Amino acid sequence: MNNDFNQYLKDKKQLIDTALPDYITKLQAPDLLKKSMIYSLKAGGKRLRPILLIASIEALGHDGQKGIETAVALEMIHTYSLIHDDLPAMDNDDLRRGQPTNHKVYGDATAILAGDALLTYAFECIASIEHPEIDSDMKMALIKKLANAAGPEGMVGGQQDDLIAEGKSLTIEELESIHLRKTGRLLGFAVEAGAILGQANEQQASHLSDFAKHLGIAFQIKDDILDIIGDQTKLGKPVGSDVTNDKNTYPKLLTLDGAKEKMNKHADAALHHLTAANIDSYLLQQLMGYVLDRNH
Amino acid sequence: MNNDFNQYLKDKKQLIDTALPDYITKLQAPDLLKKSMIYSLKAGGKRLRPILLIASIEALGHDGQKGIETAVALEMIHTYSLIHDDLPAMDNDDLRRGQPTNHKVYGDATAILAGDALLTYAFECIASIEHPEIDSDMKMALIKKLANAAGPEGMVGGQQDDLIAEGKSLTIEELESIHLRKTGRLLGFAVEAGAILGQANEQQASHLSDFAKHLGIAFQIKDDILDIIGDQTKLGKPVGSDVTNDKNTYPKLLTLDGAKEKMNKHADAALHHLTAANIDSYLLQQLMGYVLDRNH
Repeated sequence: MNNDFNQYLKDKKQLIDTALPDYITKLQAPDLLKKSMIYSLKAGGKRLRPILLIASIEALGHDGQKGIETAVALEMIHTYSLIHDDLPAMDNDDLRRGQPTNHKVYGDATAILAGDALLTYAFECIASIEHPEIDSDMKMALIKKLANAAGPEGMVGGQQDDLIAEGKSLTIEELESIHLRKTGRLLGFAVEAGAILGQANEQQASHLSDFAKHLGIAFQIKDDILDIIGDQTKLGKPVGSDVTNDKNTYPKLLTLDGAKEKMNKHADAALHHLTAANIDSYLLQQLMGYVLDRNH
Repeated sequence: MNNDFNQYLKDKKQLIDTALPDYITKLQAPDLLKKSMIYSLKAGGKRLRPILLIASIEALGHDGQKGIETAVALEMIHTYSLIHDDLPAMDNDDLRRGQPTNHKVYGDATAILAGDALLTYAFECIASIEHPEIDSDMKMALIKKLANAAGPEGMVGGQQDDLIAEGKSLTIEELESIHLRKTGRLLGFAVEAGAILGQANEQQASHLSDFAKHLGIAFQIKDDILDIIGDQTKLGKPVGSDVTNDKNTYPKLLTLDGAKEKMNKHADAALHHLTAANIDSYLLQQLMGYVLDRNH
């Protein structure tokens, strides 16, 4: 990873890290609720989705600043999904990125409400965008795509099927269908939102969407691989927890080498679409490399 | 209640009852998730919010049919809030309108996800409206208002403060602030959405908004009164459960007579704004009478 790109990642992460709590602090809402929302927003990791969104806008030659509200909304929805996922009734996780999960700090009831609040507020943030180059049609397209990606046909549907699949053996197609929805659709939205805000033409939008799809699968395979060979202190969770929990993972279905091979195939496909999109693809290429070479 | 209005209520309830499951059935989503969503949508009661929305459009001389998607979205959000409210981590209710609550039938995890799915999908339903008289600006205004009414500054914030208030004594102002957000804001949205879709002028919109505010408070006081003097079989929950749970209610703070008096004051204020709005107020007047004279 070169220094310029490293600095780019740092700058954008900083931008999102600063913006997120400001969006909550200004709310006329109960302090405890705001604290709980901010707690999980601040526990955020790499800010991959917001950065992917902003980099996609820039790849199309537009000012990434146009995407800040949408990036913030996207990170809110990602964060709500983690809060609800960690609940005792769901995955029952006490730690997330090495920190106590939301419900361990604020209790189950407030954690549920903080998740609900982040999800709802995300749509208000997009609907409230005021920018001379972002009209109601664009905002409407963003909301429609985000709701579909996060809702019953997208992320929530994937989570439901993931729950149902616990303890069962899946085919690779079933596993992929779950991951495509559970993590792929929100990653895909990051790039699709970038295409909307960066005013991509139809062909560019189509290639960017395919790029995101393959990147999403590769990302998930990488996650599964890290669970086996990763560094616990960097991951913030015990290595091997997927195996212990008898989860369906790519290495389990394909062996570790098979999973790596599959990841590389999706990375190649992603790169192909990125090149075909005929955009300034440098940042997105670097971002892809960063995601797939990471060790946590 | 006259027969015409009785028939109107029946017709509109039928319209909503029929539309709601159709919106879920067509989704490409896990069957279990769809069943859980439909279960709670079908357990719906009077459909007060959707009918209020449609009647508000009609009071402004427009076709109520214009409001169907927004009415459906509103009922989805109301329903999600009930599912999450009933969870063991929240109010821990086993029955709702005489039926087992969602989590008693589908388990806590699916109930959480069904709530999340309904909330998210509601915004997609509005963003997907296709109607020659409803442009992106109107859809954007609807989504912005709905998200604000349902989110941390509205319903979710009210629920959080309600949780915090459990076992504490509130002033009447604190109680009113909670109710205004917990139930009043969504009722208010019904009328405000009607004003947007019925193209109310500024003065009409302002009076309609005030009408909804007072109606919302009167509605909540009526609820509290019914908990004391209502008919258990019609209410679908034990009479006196608020007292048993040591909840803050209007009768507790004001006596039963004091609560009735306060309800009537708000009803008068609601009526005043309805008259001042200079619209065809017959339906909304009848609806108000229906809400405040009900025995369940």
